[in-house]
Amino acid sequence: MSKEEFGFETIQLGHGSGGLMTRDLLDKIIFNTFSNPYLDQKHDGSIVDFKGKIAISTDSFVVSPIFFKGGNIGELAVNGTVNDVAMCGAIPKYLTLAFIIEEGLKIDEFITIVNSIKKSADESGVQIITGDTKVVERGKGDKIFINTTGFGDVNTKAKIAAEHIEIGDKILLNGYIAQHGMAIMSQREGLEFESTIESDTTNLNFLVNDLINEFGDKIHLFRDPTRGGVASVLSEISQDINKGIVIYEDKIPLEKQVAAACEILGLDPLYVANEGVFLVIVDASISDDVLLFMKKDKKGKNAAFIGEVTQEHPSKVVMQSTIGGKRIVTPLIGEQLPRIC
Amino acid sequence: MSKEEFGFETIQLGHGSGGLMTRDLLDKIIFNTFSNPYLDQKHDGSIVDFKGKIAISTDSFVVSPIFFKGGNIGELAVNGTVNDVAMCGAIPKYLTLAFIIEEGLKIDEFITIVNSIKKSADESGVQIITGDTKVVERGKGDKIFINTTGFGDVNTKAKIAAEHIEIGDKILLNGYIAQHGMAIMSQREGLEFESTIESDTTNLNFLVNDLINEFGDKIHLFRDPTRGGVASVLSEISQDINKGIVIYEDKIPLEKQVAAACEILGLDPLYVANEGVFLVIVDASISDDVLLFMKKDKKGKNAAFIGEVTQEHPSKVVMQSTIGGKRIVTPLIGEQLPRIC
Repeated sequence: MSKEEFGFETIQLGHGSGGLMTRDLLDKIIFNTFSNPYLDQKHDGSIVDFKGKIAISTDSFVVSPIFFKGGNIGELAVNGTVNDVAMCGAIPKYLTLAFIIEEGLKIDEFITIVNSIKKSADESGVQIITGDTKVVERGKGDKIFINTTGFGDVNTKAKIAAEHIEIGDKILLNGYIAQHGMAIMSQREGLEFESTIESDTTNLNFLVNDLINEFGDKIHLFRDPTRGGVASVLSEISQDINKGIVIYEDKIPLEKQVAAACEILGLDPLYVANEGVFLVIVDASISDDVLLFMKKDKKGKNAAFIGEVTQEHPSKVVMQSTIGGKRIVTPLIGEQLPRIC
Repeated sequence: MSKEEFGFETIQLGHGSGGLMTRDLLDKIIFNTFSNPYLDQKHDGSIVDFKGKIAISTDSFVVSPIFFKGGNIGELAVNGTVNDVAMCGAIPKYLTLAFIIEEGLKIDEFITIVNSIKKSADESGVQIITGDTKVVERGKGDKIFINTTGFGDVNTKAKIAAEHIEIGDKILLNGYIAQHGMAIMSQREGLEFESTIESDTTNLNFLVNDLINEFGDKIHLFRDPTRGGVASVLSEISQDINKGIVIYEDKIPLEKQVAAACEILGLDPLYVANEGVFLVIVDASISDDVLLFMKKDKKGKNAAFIGEVTQEHPSKVVMQSTIGGKRIVTPLIGEQLPRIC
């Protein structure tokens, strides 16, 4: 579908009316792209069959700019929710998709975003089963906001919960941190670095599921450190479990150019948002095997052991720095990077 | 919770950071209000048990103004999605709740909305099981947008699908049309009518479920005529089933003051949005019984038979007017009342 075939250059208020213009937008761009037996009913809802424990997660995506190095808001909206469902130990299956579009969004941009959603959904193995499209007047939104809600069957081998975490558990990361946040930030600030930083947005569900199948209940927790970064997520976990966490600065996977960008902008990479990164907390006995297993996967090839759960300093995260000092890692307080996802 | 206890007068960008300010907002206002075993996990997702056919629906609510006579955006966000799930023949059980808040929204207003969501959710018998909160800069949103995704068990007695509709089927409405749209519109235009028009926002799930339990597969379709009104929904149905629909102008429940407001503003009530209204299409043999049954219920006391499915004029809706003439009812094309829900 091109804007010529669609007949409009930009999204109009009428495309959110619930009348013929809405139907036309849906028929030509949405139903066309995502066609599947659920969506083809063209109703306000869909009916699916479930049996057992289902993980559900919802997220609204308001990232600015909507196109960035390494992705766009459409991919983010799929991968973000797919990953949240995966972090529950589940296999994502279905997504709902709701747009809030600002009048005047270019149809070309909308089509690009919709195509990215389709591609990411296919790659993650999820189907778009129902949706919604609203249009707000110019100046009452910001191009496009996307909400996705995801559903998936919990892997019966999974026993994921913070309460299973024990003293001595090891903390691993699947790859380089701070890439998504610094990609967005560099672009917003118009900074050019030696080589370009790209968002790490990607689906993590297959690797996560493989880990559960391989290691079962010895895996105690998955978490994706998006907004607030690794520091905020680890702080939350250590408070929830009332145990200490120690991390080793020199073990945290961080690309040189990302580190440089952080330094220029005065940001601590530990607080910068990630999209293709997850933390996994495992029984000490399997830590080395998990690391090896992850390193064999494309999504985990830069995996690293970064720390452990301790009896000391309960509810606090302590970082042992490269030069030997220790500092408490507090959670992010307010806004470091607004509208990062 | 008051704004004094919360410590801020308005929502700040930091409340969407994913850091401590976000956690504080969630702890003090959200988790506090909606506390239940699912939400109390305080994770990015929730796990629920399901078995069988589940109806899923999603909607973003962008109504302006966010407070209106008869309700606010919070109630609308619950009732709208609850009703969409109900229209699938299902019993709504769970909702996800995602906010996109414009920086500067008054905390008092946010708390009022959250309390309305809680009240409406309780009245509908649904639990909020997971959610998301994003904040956008001033001028990049419009106070608050809310997405809800709802799911519920399909009533095993339900056999709801447009394909079951037959020639001769009767079409009934549960009550007065055009109230929600005209409540919003009157308020926007600053019009004062003799008596005040209120939004009809309410949950319809209990009456719908009672109807299914009583009449089973003789009920062929439920639809709630929200955006685009009764005219657009009936047009869609008649096209989907490739059969004709005739409706009788003098049988359509319409309050005098709403009719007067429509006339003043030059709007056709058949195209005006409803929130507490549903159409039900039933086997002719049970039409009178369904009408009696609905009239006994508070949500159906103004129910009426309004038309039927015909062999003539397939894919078209024809209205027989009070003075005897006939006219084709076309679907709404573009925008009549932007941001009505």
